[in-house]
Amino acid sequence: MTAGERTPYREKTTLTAEETTMPLDNPFYTAEMQGPYELHSLGRFELEEGGVIPDLELAVATYGELNEDRSNAILVPTWFSGTHATWWQVYLGEGRALDPTKWFIVVVNQIGNGLSTSPHTTDDPEIAMSRFPKVWVGDDVRAQEQLLREVFGIERLALVVGGSMGAQQTYEWAVRFPDKVLRAAPIAGTAQNTPHDFLYTQTLMDAITSDPGWNGGEYAAATDVADGLRRHADIWAVMGLSTEFWKTEFWRGVQPLVEGQVWDDFGDFQEGFIRTVFGMMDPNALLTMGWKWQRGDVARNTGGDLAAALGRITAKTYVMPFDEDMFFPPRDCEAEQRMIPGSELRVLHSIAGHFGLFGFEQTYLDELDAHLKELLETEV
Amino acid sequence: MTAGERTPYREKTTLTAEETTMPLDNPFYTAEMQGPYELHSLGRFELEEGGVIPDLELAVATYGELNEDRSNAILVPTWFSGTHATWWQVYLGEGRALDPTKWFIVVVNQIGNGLSTSPHTTDDPEIAMSRFPKVWVGDDVRAQEQLLREVFGIERLALVVGGSMGAQQTYEWAVRFPDKVLRAAPIAGTAQNTPHDFLYTQTLMDAITSDPGWNGGEYAAATDVADGLRRHADIWAVMGLSTEFWKTEFWRGVQPLVEGQVWDDFGDFQEGFIRTVFGMMDPNALLTMGWKWQRGDVARNTGGDLAAALGRITAKTYVMPFDEDMFFPPRDCEAEQRMIPGSELRVLHSIAGHFGLFGFEQTYLDELDAHLKELLETEV
Repeated sequence: MTAGERTPYREKTTLTAEETTMPLDNPFYTAEMQGPYELHSLGRFELEEGGVIPDLELAVATYGELNEDRSNAILVPTWFSGTHATWWQVYLGEGRALDPTKWFIVVVNQIGNGLSTSPHTTDDPEIAMSRFPKVWVGDDVRAQEQLLREVFGIERLALVVGGSMGAQQTYEWAVRFPDKVLRAAPIAGTAQNTPHDFLYTQTLMDAITSDPGWNGGEYAAATDVADGLRRHADIWAVMGLSTEFWKTEFWRGVQPLVEGQVWDDFGDFQEGFIRTVFGMMDPNALLTMGWKWQRGDVARNTGGDLAAALGRITAKTYVMPFDEDMFFPPRDCEAEQRMIPGSELRVLHSIAGHFGLFGFEQTYLDELDAHLKELLETEV
Repeated sequence: MTAGERTPYREKTTLTAEETTMPLDNPFYTAEMQGPYELHSLGRFELEEGGVIPDLELAVATYGELNEDRSNAILVPTWFSGTHATWWQVYLGEGRALDPTKWFIVVVNQIGNGLSTSPHTTDDPEIAMSRFPKVWVGDDVRAQEQLLREVFGIERLALVVGGSMGAQQTYEWAVRFPDKVLRAAPIAGTAQNTPHDFLYTQTLMDAITSDPGWNGGEYAAATDVADGLRRHADIWAVMGLSTEFWKTEFWRGVQPLVEGQVWDDFGDFQEGFIRTVFGMMDPNALLTMGWKWQRGDVARNTGGDLAAALGRITAKTYVMPFDEDMFFPPRDCEAEQRMIPGSELRVLHSIAGHFGLFGFEQTYLDELDAHLKELLETEV
């Protein structure tokens, strides 16, 4: 089925008791907002934490054509709060590294991100809203592997590339399925989440769950949790961007979300950009991703031995942290890179810190493209 | 009067309507917890924001003896959430830079910190709790100048030294009273607060005010705001310490608060140290200080011209940021240092980031002492 056929938007903000297991409508999670995608059902999907998703649907966007020998496939898993949208808007294009005229690019929205099966999108009372099961990064990677094999007949990937939680999935792919990943490009993320990162993610989650409107996950509309979403966004403003981004007023050059929108001071930008973007999202979706992010760890595949896990990787790997990232600093990424055979550290430069991923700077996009082109040209 | 004579501790957690303007008891803000201090009344004190404190009392701790020509006085203003306690516990001692056998060291608790006049300590219904007026850094500095002059007869300071908000006050002293400050040592703070810092402080404050128990500032006991204080502490855990502090498990070597206390993982340390320390504090006191911190700016003295303000400084100044500080990074401090005539940048090294101020590492204390000794030996 296509995205357009999903639950129509309903003009209401409260639900009756009978409706509490109905999918919530949220215009943010539509093809109109995110760009076209398809839902592919994987059927019953057993999760590593012990839960089950009776019918797991992955929201998938593809760009380009799969060649005959199926050797030109690139997989892109999504980041926390993200969808496939930023990829087609910012990273893909003819002549770019991720060129749909050369490559078959498959962007898979992570489980619980609001497009793939998520707490607020399912009408299955067993898993709706507060009853949504816990999902690990490994679940996403297994689901993606099944999807690629069953739906597209893809057994090998020319590249897996992703940012942040997308980097977590990239690492998990390279460790879990070394024979299937020829090249890997984890951007601004780690293979094993750090304690600092765990604590940081918890502050994001607590900002949401502390809102009485969240109601233990049983809110009637995401807007009931507006205060929590605002606080969540405000913490991102502090950690997602860099001190220098704010000090130099780099936001003055950031393209507005809406035509004609202007920001005269940093408070305007915080309100008009950061709070607005994060404020459209679904609280339970963010919490599902947050829990997963906190536990990203490839060493689960090797009894806790990180060196052994990373030592398994046979993909040619470029580890690409941002120089100004406040919570995935280059040194954390470099420590992991050194455990990956034949890998290289390619530090990316963006004044925006972690949110460099949004692609505010052409210099960053050019830099990344150069690295990815070089990686894709590497014989493996 | 001495601290011991203040409101006795009361065994209750709720107040009647008549009692809502009574001082709240909080064992954290006692001489037993913080060490001896004296309260000095300055009488009616008009604030820069327009409010009035009818009887401003400053909580002052002194160490050593003032010499005959009153030339050996060192002033130490306190940081956000801090009191004089850390200074006598960690920074003062015979043979140290801040040696009470040589210097007369005056630690003044900032207005609203829970020991000096604060929302929860006053029984004046005009300013108690939610009605406490807004206080600027300049108010503290004016009050301290009056205190030193009227109570101690001190007209010149051999040194003003403070960390974080103490650095803000140090800068304000050096700009506002250049003839009175011979040497200045702002540690881990800025003369003009940055936008990032403003946003960061706001997340700390919102963590508190989003707790329904805060009740618009009219809680009956600080413990009513336990959830908010916990979230406030958790954000400090992310920003106050460094990623490396957590990654290297430096906390394993941190001295427990209570004898026999142990922490086996980072969650134990977060709970047993960070949440415990911040959880004892008063919400409105933290908010008073937070509002003040957000607005620290010496350029208020020169119509918004930062270079002009810093150019006024005649004190020999060592600007001392921490290398790992997440919100007062060395580059922000260096940019200001370059505007201060004859000043020097002395970067301090601590894996604890901003919380290096707590003095977890002897190496840091030795490093700071060496800088301060050199500064104090400089002829001015």
